[in-house]
Amino acid sequence: MLETTIAEIGPLDEAAMAAARELHGRLTKPAGSLGALEELSVRLAGLAGACPPPLPEPAAVAIFAGDHGVHAQGVSPWPQEVTAQMIGNFLAGGAVVNAFARQAGAAVTVVDVGVATALPAGDAPAGDGPVLDPGVPRLVDARVRPGTRDLAVTAALTRDEARAAVEVGIRVAHELVDAGAGILLTGDMGIGNTTPAAALVAAFTGTDPAGTTGRGTGVDDPTYRRKVEVVRAALERHRPDPADPLGVLAAVGGLEHAALAGLILGAAARRVPVLLDGVIACSAALAAAAFAPDAVGAMVAGHRSAEPGATLALRRLGLDPLIDLGLRLGEGTGALLALPVVTGAVRVLHEVATFDAAGVSEK
Amino acid sequence: MLETTIAEIGPLDEAAMAAARELHGRLTKPAGSLGALEELSVRLAGLAGACPPPLPEPAAVAIFAGDHGVHAQGVSPWPQEVTAQMIGNFLAGGAVVNAFARQAGAAVTVVDVGVATALPAGDAPAGDGPVLDPGVPRLVDARVRPGTRDLAVTAALTRDEARAAVEVGIRVAHELVDAGAGILLTGDMGIGNTTPAAALVAAFTGTDPAGTTGRGTGVDDPTYRRKVEVVRAALERHRPDPADPLGVLAAVGGLEHAALAGLILGAAARRVPVLLDGVIACSAALAAAAFAPDAVGAMVAGHRSAEPGATLALRRLGLDPLIDLGLRLGEGTGALLALPVVTGAVRVLHEVATFDAAGVSEK
Repeated sequence: MLETTIAEIGPLDEAAMAAARELHGRLTKPAGSLGALEELSVRLAGLAGACPPPLPEPAAVAIFAGDHGVHAQGVSPWPQEVTAQMIGNFLAGGAVVNAFARQAGAAVTVVDVGVATALPAGDAPAGDGPVLDPGVPRLVDARVRPGTRDLAVTAALTRDEARAAVEVGIRVAHELVDAGAGILLTGDMGIGNTTPAAALVAAFTGTDPAGTTGRGTGVDDPTYRRKVEVVRAALERHRPDPADPLGVLAAVGGLEHAALAGLILGAAARRVPVLLDGVIACSAALAAAAFAPDAVGAMVAGHRSAEPGATLALRRLGLDPLIDLGLRLGEGTGALLALPVVTGAVRVLHEVATFDAAGVSEK
Repeated sequence: MLETTIAEIGPLDEAAMAAARELHGRLTKPAGSLGALEELSVRLAGLAGACPPPLPEPAAVAIFAGDHGVHAQGVSPWPQEVTAQMIGNFLAGGAVVNAFARQAGAAVTVVDVGVATALPAGDAPAGDGPVLDPGVPRLVDARVRPGTRDLAVTAALTRDEARAAVEVGIRVAHELVDAGAGILLTGDMGIGNTTPAAALVAAFTGTDPAGTTGRGTGVDDPTYRRKVEVVRAALERHRPDPADPLGVLAAVGGLEHAALAGLILGAAARRVPVLLDGVIACSAALAAAAFAPDAVGAMVAGHRSAEPGATLALRRLGLDPLIDLGLRLGEGTGALLALPVVTGAVRVLHEVATFDAAGVSEK
């Protein structure tokens, strides 16, 4: 399934992009006055192969949740049980991602791709309700294994496990697009997951871990130094090859990172835009681009996370974020904040009058 | 009315701000992980004097339209008639501001505070429909005079005209808040209006016009140089006193700039947030702050316009913009793009579960 998906990903449609540029020049506004929104709408026309491209509606955020063996190294101040507890919070609608999703009218799908502990009882409705119901968060049980192994000691995953997690993401992308989603948003939950993200960004960009590692949900100085050393030692131990993304994900990744790479590949194969959240999504996007360089055409950078690895990854991918407000929460919150900007950019091509039609003089 | 409004504007409520900070610490997210949204929600609690502050709904964008005598100096490549033609476009729902307002569910009020030419026939519904109907843009006829005088030659307005325009803005603010608006957004239309905006920013910040003047809707190099010289000469001729905001508005302002200053003062007096659009709004915000320094507490910077004067004004006001995407369209478009960020920031305080209630462990 991974290889089939990669084979389906192609370049942007140049004719549709040219048509979008030409249309922008006729709309009642000074040329170029919508700044980055114009380029974004042109790119989405190229992705859809149509001008105007469809409005990115309805929206679906997929929150992939996993745990991390490297938590044993003391890289996070939060207990590992919080991953499962926050899934309960997502399903009860009480997290920030739920508040933002309700506001944006986005459906929330929580995917357990590798939580280490039991989920809270009573909080796990079957995944057989409507796929896209903005009012009811949905849980998908797709646990590949109960958390990764400790990447400081051994490979986090086998290649087969990494592939299975990527394919969970691809399947979720197809399910959401089949249900009608016009845009997918990346979400994540996993105590300790900024450590594998920092390792992935270092591996794919060739940057020293001191430059890719951040303070995550807020670690103190000794924990931060330990985190950098854990990442550095893991890269020296495993020496992952950036040209082998499955190998990199297996050596130093996480189950949610691998699944997000799959979600991105699935969206790109279906030519549906995928709105990236923070550093976990950006590290997964590097893996997706290593699998299929044209997948970058489907990616929209939602925001600039406070994590330094996110900025490094976006620079490598050639993407500028839409929102830059110092967020470092994850869950999909930054992507959801950016969603109206994406929708607005496309809406202009649908709804704004031309100079001719509106009887407005040109300069 | 101006003096009464100024007297009603007071400081932020420290107790409500402290309550919002305390609540943020108990919500299911790492402390500080929502970055600038947390500070914003705290400030809005201070403005409302309540924690949580009310959701900023419904939203109303007020587009003040005016013409400019300085257009005769060749500071814009667009014919002056475009101001009136674009009002027709706003009322027909065909402009970018309409597309963004529909998406955001914001009502659009167009206020003719000083257009120089006749409005397009048939496009001027009476202003007696519902004040807040997101589906139907509304026109308010409040023309103080048909455009300003040429500030390169004489004062743009008399003090009485400037005061009348400010009071139009105050009245519109009261009308919108009386109708139930939870947030006001600034909009503007006026061919040539970045020239008085550059002069206002120079006058209020003491910056050389070369630093406050931009290319507006896109002027070429000779026009740009002429524009800077027009602003410089006007300031040397009129020598406006930044401690006398009415005098500054009269000497080098515009009718829509003065009305926007009034809208901001009216919102601040009613303790309702006012979301600023681009350089026209930012120059008006400097005037509002000169009238009443506490008015800054009601201001939220929607976006960073590509016009350099906007950045200078926001720095002087101590405001950081929410969106920074190179927009330079005006109309209220940048404010509308930022609206979901403001709403999201407040929504967190209303809807997110506490660690205690959600059964999530703390670090």
